[in-house]
Amino acid sequence: MERRVNARSRLIVIGGDAAGMSAASQARRLRGSADLQILALERGHHTSYSACGIPYLVGRTVSSHDELISRDPETFRRDFDIDVRTGTEAEGIDLDRRTVTVRTAGEGAVEEPFDELMIANGAVPVRPDLPGMDAPGVFGVQTLTDGIAVREFVDTERPRSAVVVGGGYIGLEMAEAFVQRGMEVHLVEAAAEPMSTFDPDMGRLVHDALVKMAVQAHMSEPVTGIETGPGGAVRAVVTDQATYPADIVVLGLGVRPDSGMARAAGIEVGPTGGIAVDPRMRTSAEGVWAAGDCVQSLHRVSQAPVAIALGTHANKQGRVAGTNIGGGYARFGGVLGTAISKVCGLEVARTGLNEAEAESAGFEFETATLESTTRAGYYPGAALMTVKMLAERRSRRLLGAQIVGWENAGKRVDVLATALWNSMSVEDVAAMDLGYAPPFSPVWDPVQIAARKLAEAM
Amino acid sequence: MERRVNARSRLIVIGGDAAGMSAASQARRLRGSADLQILALERGHHTSYSACGIPYLVGRTVSSHDELISRDPETFRRDFDIDVRTGTEAEGIDLDRRTVTVRTAGEGAVEEPFDELMIANGAVPVRPDLPGMDAPGVFGVQTLTDGIAVREFVDTERPRSAVVVGGGYIGLEMAEAFVQRGMEVHLVEAAAEPMSTFDPDMGRLVHDALVKMAVQAHMSEPVTGIETGPGGAVRAVVTDQATYPADIVVLGLGVRPDSGMARAAGIEVGPTGGIAVDPRMRTSAEGVWAAGDCVQSLHRVSQAPVAIALGTHANKQGRVAGTNIGGGYARFGGVLGTAISKVCGLEVARTGLNEAEAESAGFEFETATLESTTRAGYYPGAALMTVKMLAERRSRRLLGAQIVGWENAGKRVDVLATALWNSMSVEDVAAMDLGYAPPFSPVWDPVQIAARKLAEAM
Repeated sequence: MERRVNARSRLIVIGGDAAGMSAASQARRLRGSADLQILALERGHHTSYSACGIPYLVGRTVSSHDELISRDPETFRRDFDIDVRTGTEAEGIDLDRRTVTVRTAGEGAVEEPFDELMIANGAVPVRPDLPGMDAPGVFGVQTLTDGIAVREFVDTERPRSAVVVGGGYIGLEMAEAFVQRGMEVHLVEAAAEPMSTFDPDMGRLVHDALVKMAVQAHMSEPVTGIETGPGGAVRAVVTDQATYPADIVVLGLGVRPDSGMARAAGIEVGPTGGIAVDPRMRTSAEGVWAAGDCVQSLHRVSQAPVAIALGTHANKQGRVAGTNIGGGYARFGGVLGTAISKVCGLEVARTGLNEAEAESAGFEFETATLESTTRAGYYPGAALMTVKMLAERRSRRLLGAQIVGWENAGKRVDVLATALWNSMSVEDVAAMDLGYAPPFSPVWDPVQIAARKLAEAM
Repeated sequence: MERRVNARSRLIVIGGDAAGMSAASQARRLRGSADLQILALERGHHTSYSACGIPYLVGRTVSSHDELISRDPETFRRDFDIDVRTGTEAEGIDLDRRTVTVRTAGEGAVEEPFDELMIANGAVPVRPDLPGMDAPGVFGVQTLTDGIAVREFVDTERPRSAVVVGGGYIGLEMAEAFVQRGMEVHLVEAAAEPMSTFDPDMGRLVHDALVKMAVQAHMSEPVTGIETGPGGAVRAVVTDQATYPADIVVLGLGVRPDSGMARAAGIEVGPTGGIAVDPRMRTSAEGVWAAGDCVQSLHRVSQAPVAIALGTHANKQGRVAGTNIGGGYARFGGVLGTAISKVCGLEVARTGLNEAEAESAGFEFETATLESTTRAGYYPGAALMTVKMLAERRSRRLLGAQIVGWENAGKRVDVLATALWNSMSVEDVAAMDLGYAPPFSPVWDPVQIAARKLAEAM
């Protein structure tokens, strides 16, 4: 059935980052200005930026925040005829009247009518309700504005000691950034090992590596509060076991989908807290779409909904929504939970399900862990890497994989993500024809030796 | 149907490198010495070595040839109870009497009986029949003995100019090695561009890069002869257009399967010149197996037999044969023509079919070529890479891919090899959940942008 395209309809996009602006620009590519008017609302000051680049901005790996911006509001206005309004927040959605209540900083609220609505307002950072959390010197690092503030603080205040709260991706990346800025760095994590999306035995490898770096890692230590100094600024982070001096504190405790406004409007929100969407990125409300960190996605392995805040999904989902809004046809294929990061040269990557997730999804499975090298053992730069894999009993199907290793280890996760996407058995993974030459791999790629080992264990 | 396993049968393995010794050791793992006697014949001096490592031995990236040897004959004798005889050549196979005629250097020929026979005698290098080809200073680089000879020659004779004949993988790698040894290097190739397994437009990129390196590349210049000096040693390489001074010449013109003895014995040889085998690595003769460079393999995309000499196939096929000889069950899944190499920092990789191969296989297809970067554009070390992809019309199935780029470009071919293994469409390749973080990739991995571009072109 073909979608009816109104003559000159109006699209409102809530959120001007990856998902929202991908959708808006893709819709524009398919429908010209005479056919579709597009209004994009962004509460912050920036559009289409790489939030993943924030740690590198802080660490001075990237010199200016301009480099993180893929397209600024003026570019969208000029090249895409999209009416981008920054400093402008959507406060509510009225599905009956088909309007959004919009407030621009310093002005009154107005009602903006829409024919199509794209919700892409992202995620909100988890902030524990503890004393001192709002003290000057305590930062989140979710938006580019946050990132610029941290960079500015480090550049001007020259903090000597930093505490990073949370040992996940963003925590590790911020720890690296602060090490690069020459600070004493403490990483505080409530769980027993860093990288809680990894199995503890793989997280342990990260922990061991951190100890050898300039990062002082404190595991199994929930934060109980923030100590402030005479001027009210942060002075230390207090855990249930110790107090760590801090001229700056960064919270990397993860995010949750910002789905409150959608829920209030009567749009269905799933069990993950993310807005429920179908593969075309349609919400439960007619003509209302959603994409990015605010939605939940289907996990292709567990077949359960998950909420994963990641720019790569936001971009893909936004493009899918934009194609459909533009009258085209596209479906989002779901996620695998693939993620990759590095901290001071240590690369960590995962895809699919870890042990806890596989158990929770009801799988019976075996695991195998293998240590190999990134290049032929005799080739200079051959670095250690550990691969752990899970496969389902009987079907022998790969369920997930985790990699911890040094240079050139991490991106091998893509082979396993591709294998998962295709529901491959571990035997087939071991059998594949992957690229081999001594500077790139041992004659059997480590991911294949691991798959072989797992096949033999089943 | 279960294979009958004789009490104390005898396996003869012809060829002691990757395929032969993988088969022998795997058979031993499954059948103990009381059950299976194993005799392995190697005409050279070394077993189980990395022929792919030879350029790095010559370039002094690897200090000693010992590092290239994975297991020496003594290890096989001691740990696997395999009777390895080096300097020992199989001269003929008698299928009726079930014997191999064996000659050890300096001794007379003897007949060795077998119950099972494993043929793994590799490939023979292509050597054009031109004047001067046998002059001192002209080398092949196929066996470790060849490689040791070249290294020795360079170490002791200190040649100042080198000519590499042939612009394929081994030619490029040897050119790099000679550059590293401080020589003036000419690369001479009969075709219009280097890397004939790539499309000419991608080969052109390699050519352009070579020009900027210390390698003087001469394309479209067939070699017509070798000039020798007063003592009979090589002095120059002559093409149809010029004469290039050469203190050393290396031939990198490829290899062909060494299937003559098998053919003479009445074993079926396929149209590629490789021994015909089924997926269990059985030849047309009962109880005779073959694996490695001497066999032909099924190409999973063209569904045609191909002869590809590569250690990674030799290892896998040898293991499959050894498992089956050992009474187990294994099948070789075929090849994709995946290959990867580097020359002075430039990485080249390919998988599946190139344009000429796709045409010859009767496919109708589209292509797309895309330039992107190996990391997020703003992240230091982001390097250019070009991806070319082919997909079948109608089915939109990926048929092949080629990558030319700088650090971290090449191994991305594995994602596309995995996609090919699973007959994925280009839309699905673009949709997958691959690992993203700024040090590793742009937010859309280059292979996915290329797939998207190709999808849009179809």
